[in-house]
Amino acid sequence: MEKLNIVKIGGNIIDDDEQLTSFLQDFSKLEGYKILVHGGGKLATGIANSLGVKQTMVDGRRITDAETLKIIVMVYAGWINKKIVAKLQALGCNAMGFCGADGNLVKSKKRENSSVDFGFVGDVLADGVNDAELTRQLYAGLIPVFSPVTYNQEGDLLNTNADTLAARIAEAMSDTFDTSLHYCFEKNGVLFDPDNEESVLESITRDQYSYLKNSGAIHNGMIPKLDEAFGALEHGVKTVIIGHASKLTDQIMSGTTIKL
Amino acid sequence: MEKLNIVKIGGNIIDDDEQLTSFLQDFSKLEGYKILVHGGGKLATGIANSLGVKQTMVDGRRITDAETLKIIVMVYAGWINKKIVAKLQALGCNAMGFCGADGNLVKSKKRENSSVDFGFVGDVLADGVNDAELTRQLYAGLIPVFSPVTYNQEGDLLNTNADTLAARIAEAMSDTFDTSLHYCFEKNGVLFDPDNEESVLESITRDQYSYLKNSGAIHNGMIPKLDEAFGALEHGVKTVIIGHASKLTDQIMSGTTIKL
Repeated sequence: MEKLNIVKIGGNIIDDDEQLTSFLQDFSKLEGYKILVHGGGKLATGIANSLGVKQTMVDGRRITDAETLKIIVMVYAGWINKKIVAKLQALGCNAMGFCGADGNLVKSKKRENSSVDFGFVGDVLADGVNDAELTRQLYAGLIPVFSPVTYNQEGDLLNTNADTLAARIAEAMSDTFDTSLHYCFEKNGVLFDPDNEESVLESITRDQYSYLKNSGAIHNGMIPKLDEAFGALEHGVKTVIIGHASKLTDQIMSGTTIKL
Repeated sequence: MEKLNIVKIGGNIIDDDEQLTSFLQDFSKLEGYKILVHGGGKLATGIANSLGVKQTMVDGRRITDAETLKIIVMVYAGWINKKIVAKLQALGCNAMGFCGADGNLVKSKKRENSSVDFGFVGDVLADGVNDAELTRQLYAGLIPVFSPVTYNQEGDLLNTNADTLAARIAEAMSDTFDTSLHYCFEKNGVLFDPDNEESVLESITRDQYSYLKNSGAIHNGMIPKLDEAFGALEHGVKTVIIGHASKLTDQIMSGTTIKL
């Protein structure tokens, strides 16, 4: 099988023009087939505040009402996605920006039966990723760039977590490609001691994860990312690495390698 | 040659959910290869006002400063484009949304040497439309949906008039397809008497256009549209029709046919 790198770039890097440009230069140099999935950053919250659209958070998660969805689509699928595509094109990387509705690429379902109504939030359907179309775009020499917006087949756009979207895409593409999933963000990897940036774990197993989670060393933001990482490995993804956005290279990215 | 319909839908229809839905139903029923180009509507102006981004107009044309460009990309390439794509997908139409940066589809150049600095406004380059890539997407069964945002190769997104973008795309595709360009908007066509909606000209020649323009019967908004329409015919487009968005059918749309 041929190799495919799926790279997720987190919000904090997107908010910093210099770090984003540097990351995109590294991404453009990656050899072979690749897909970029980007998060949101703080711009959506800033615009919601300026427009007077009140943001409701429950347990650290945003409730996506109709007005918030509109802002998310504008900022994530509009400004951030197109800015990244234009920058990659200027670097000679033939990027094409997508949300899940484009070409029926990622179908989801509005989250239900939850104790909290999260609003217009979409969970990617089993078989929701159109791997045939995505493969066709890759074979045609295009570099897909995904914003974390999906859709249901009734015509609604839905907000989907970018870490989750990257994992679902990586899993779906694993039938055709030897896939590596890279979670790039502002830390050097999974830290043994959250207060010490140098305490990066070279690798982490499920048992180690449970231990560190119970001891409180691994905190909120990292838990869903690690859950997705282990899930992706269980669903056919060959390699999952979590590391700093500045350390993406052609070789395996330095950071923490997830091991089953 | 096979037929290709390029349909441009104007801003006023986009602002009206009911009319937009009805138009998209008609568009989804059009047989054969097709491309949709959409305008902006009033949402961008509303958001600019709410965000306190002052809009400067010169001779009825908007000056696109950096903050206005961001709003235009968010609204046109983000919310409106993705809303249309999701609605078309729900109608069984395999739409894929693009701005000019995606897949290097439409390259433009920041307007210069003008008496007025229009800011981040892009004029499509000669050979700026990537007809090879667009043809490949059509042959793969996709329906391209363009927002009026283009880019230069230095990584800048630029604001381009949607009528102009539709004409440039139609011209570029005329080497490969027998192209028809449909300008759909809120009027029944080119009116002989601007105050009488029923005074639609069945066709209009260059001579008739000059006469009506000089007599003041054809006014501001229609002049650039007609200039683009005549230009498109001169550059290989087979048919150009201007008419009401509610009258798009599989047959030639009722409205005004442009004749050289």
